[in-house]
Amino acid sequence: MKTETELKDFIKNGSRMYVPGLTIDCVIFGYHDRQLKVMLGGYKGLGGFGLPGGYVKRTELLSIAAERTVKEKTSLDNLYLEQFYAFGDSPFRTTKVNIHPSIANTWLAERTFSIGYYALVEFSKVSPEPDFLLDSLEWFDVATLPTLLFDHNDVVSKALEHLRINLYHKPIGYNLLEKKFTLPEIHSLYETILDKKLDRRNFPKKLLSLGLIKDTNEVRKIGQHRSPRLYTFDKKNYQTALKEGIVLVI
Amino acid sequence: MKTETELKDFIKNGSRMYVPGLTIDCVIFGYHDRQLKVMLGGYKGLGGFGLPGGYVKRTELLSIAAERTVKEKTSLDNLYLEQFYAFGDSPFRTTKVNIHPSIANTWLAERTFSIGYYALVEFSKVSPEPDFLLDSLEWFDVATLPTLLFDHNDVVSKALEHLRINLYHKPIGYNLLEKKFTLPEIHSLYETILDKKLDRRNFPKKLLSLGLIKDTNEVRKIGQHRSPRLYTFDKKNYQTALKEGIVLVI
Repeated sequence: MKTETELKDFIKNGSRMYVPGLTIDCVIFGYHDRQLKVMLGGYKGLGGFGLPGGYVKRTELLSIAAERTVKEKTSLDNLYLEQFYAFGDSPFRTTKVNIHPSIANTWLAERTFSIGYYALVEFSKVSPEPDFLLDSLEWFDVATLPTLLFDHNDVVSKALEHLRINLYHKPIGYNLLEKKFTLPEIHSLYETILDKKLDRRNFPKKLLSLGLIKDTNEVRKIGQHRSPRLYTFDKKNYQTALKEGIVLVI
Repeated sequence: MKTETELKDFIKNGSRMYVPGLTIDCVIFGYHDRQLKVMLGGYKGLGGFGLPGGYVKRTELLSIAAERTVKEKTSLDNLYLEQFYAFGDSPFRTTKVNIHPSIANTWLAERTFSIGYYALVEFSKVSPEPDFLLDSLEWFDVATLPTLLFDHNDVVSKALEHLRINLYHKPIGYNLLEKKFTLPEIHSLYETILDKKLDRRNFPKKLLSLGLIKDTNEVRKIGQHRSPRLYTFDKKNYQTALKEGIVLVI
């Protein structure tokens, strides 16, 4: 937890350590049981919610800055972050920032471009902790977001667009489903993210034919008459697909 | 054409007009008859080839800066530019730039992030003209690029990756083929960009079933025994697909 003195020093001298005019915004999507959410922070003193974000250190790699930002702001570590877009078109991004008297005429008031990164986690399995600039971190349904600070509604929309397109070209699910899952479970995952119905017969066939998932030869006993087969990810094929890309026809 | 005096003024005072530390790099792909090329500039005094690029004006929208940069550097206008990635990880992007004595200790030597945009044109139909910083503008085969300045080989690779993925989600071809074209012609376009074979029967069916192309009921007389049917883009469906996205299963 940073003290008031440290915050004042950041406002006054932060540009010695950080690149001015360029931030990172992180769209952390959360999935659990047919729900898709996004993590938003309640910003102290600004009276609103926005994405967790931060600055890049002067000699830091951009991708490392994204990982550090997520960790500092939310305490979450080892997320698979994907860069998706750079923002510099909104009125919030073409003029000086004027959101709080404490930063007027400081380096923080300069026009700011932002690079967006997104990640997708199982929201019931993580425990985000807000940093000193945030009052809270909360999960919001992507379908019913409030009006966010700056251009962050646009940033979330663009992230969602990229997440959906990426679904056809990179496998997902490894950290979102149990180690062994039923076909309806992985089906729901894809339907929820794409926000559309997928064919119940053909869709799992495609995942099987790409070798991404495989039959465990086990079943889950739900009741006397229901015992769906259990599947698991083929770790090797999954890693190869992540690296080389796929074309998923669903 | 800028004079030597103007160049000196840009080096000394450019940061009054432009945002320091952030450039735009433009990957202009060119297609013609089964060939995919990329436009590179011979940079004066740097002894190598690199992508056309430039800085963003202080209150200019990022997307407008990309259009202006392409026009200033290459004289090409009205390209459909797609932003694809922001570069800040290469050693060229984490330390000060030290490529020429004339810019040492100026704003141009600061660490520079870059936002990449790409476009795709019919290279036999455009006449690029280099600006005052370039000796030449030339088309290079994407498969056999030389070692480029800075991290520009990585920038081209990333652009190609995005162009290929986008092929499944946005229609292309409108400015690349004649107004009326044969199925083998559009087939070759997709095969050349994807650098892979596509099924000769199924592929055109997909384009037809999405309503992107339609039969003109005309044929092209090639010889006594060859008169392939001619197709054209359905302008309305094409525009809708550009705006709303498609999932092309090929």
